[in-house]
Amino acid sequence: MSQDGLFVSFEGIDGSGKSTQARLLADRLTALGRDVVLTREPGGSPGAEEIRALVLQGDPDRWSAETELLLFTAARRDHLERTIRPALEAGKIVICDRFADSTRMYQGLSRGNLRSKVDALHELMIGIEPDLTILIDMDPSTGLSRAKSRNTVEERFEDFGHGLQAQMRDGFLALAEEFEHRFRVIDGARAPESVAEDVWAAVSPHLT
Amino acid sequence: MSQDGLFVSFEGIDGSGKSTQARLLADRLTALGRDVVLTREPGGSPGAEEIRALVLQGDPDRWSAETELLLFTAARRDHLERTIRPALEAGKIVICDRFADSTRMYQGLSRGNLRSKVDALHELMIGIEPDLTILIDMDPSTGLSRAKSRNTVEERFEDFGHGLQAQMRDGFLALAEEFEHRFRVIDGARAPESVAEDVWAAVSPHLT
Repeated sequence: MSQDGLFVSFEGIDGSGKSTQARLLADRLTALGRDVVLTREPGGSPGAEEIRALVLQGDPDRWSAETELLLFTAARRDHLERTIRPALEAGKIVICDRFADSTRMYQGLSRGNLRSKVDALHELMIGIEPDLTILIDMDPSTGLSRAKSRNTVEERFEDFGHGLQAQMRDGFLALAEEFEHRFRVIDGARAPESVAEDVWAAVSPHLT
Repeated sequence: MSQDGLFVSFEGIDGSGKSTQARLLADRLTALGRDVVLTREPGGSPGAEEIRALVLQGDPDRWSAETELLLFTAARRDHLERTIRPALEAGKIVICDRFADSTRMYQGLSRGNLRSKVDALHELMIGIEPDLTILIDMDPSTGLSRAKSRNTVEERFEDFGHGLQAQMRDGFLALAEEFEHRFRVIDGARAPESVAEDVWAAVSPHLT
């Protein structure tokens, strides 16, 4: 929970449209004269982007789930120190495409069943949670075909395929119940403009 | 503590001669027909060497102490999984030039006073300690001039200079008291052959 600015994260399976919605929200807030930092994970600072490149390229089992968890946590720590915390302390609105909830899902649930390690590591080295997390919920078949059509470079993750995405969708919905005070679940299987209206309805009460 | 093989680490300040002693020990054991894996940290496996390169190049404050700690722990986890543990399980003798004690010193003591985080992270993600740790003790003035004459690439660390090395020497000696069951302190300010004899006297009782 930030003291000054507002910290909003977007979560969801690949192809759910969360990156588009993060950008639309940033545009709308900027048009209203708000100071916005739009960022993403893994990455979001020069050092974290280098770590991201190290993790995301190469064979799917190049790194064990535990090593990958440590690398993502290193990237998050750098991102937090160099990008997120300075912006929040300056009173800005930080919009982050994926944050620790993605790690709770991808490393905590699907790869190594490491949720207790993920949580302990987060408490030890990160500590902060978003003020608001927008989960863009979508059927995995729709999400995966969207992700593939984008031809992204994150092949390691998207290669895990439909089974993983279905598990992730259920996992994200369970996470939204676990942290219901900060999660809002929005149906992503609609026109981006309609989704954006729901996102705005969730975010605008947090603006001061 | 390993169940099958023998895990020996060498620790000491830069230029103490620990790398030379690790190699001399490996040579002597190999000459006796022992199966030896000589390795080093940070690094020691292909992935860990890539993480090492990311950490050791560039400005000294490129990474915070906390991010550096996470990156080194990621490298150690990879090294443990891909190099150390398989060798120990095959009954081999693993000789490692630096291990977790270096992290207890460099990240735990000198950079960020992070010792409690270092210990928590080690317990959570690494878990193993060497069966025997050889501390090559040396006056920092001698050590630093030796290290500089080698012209190594690890400039980030050696740039910290004499003040750090003096703090490290004291820190390593304190660590040797804290973990006295596995540490042996050997005076490194002598001819390498004399030091090697003391190393052998410390290691040979552990051979089965």
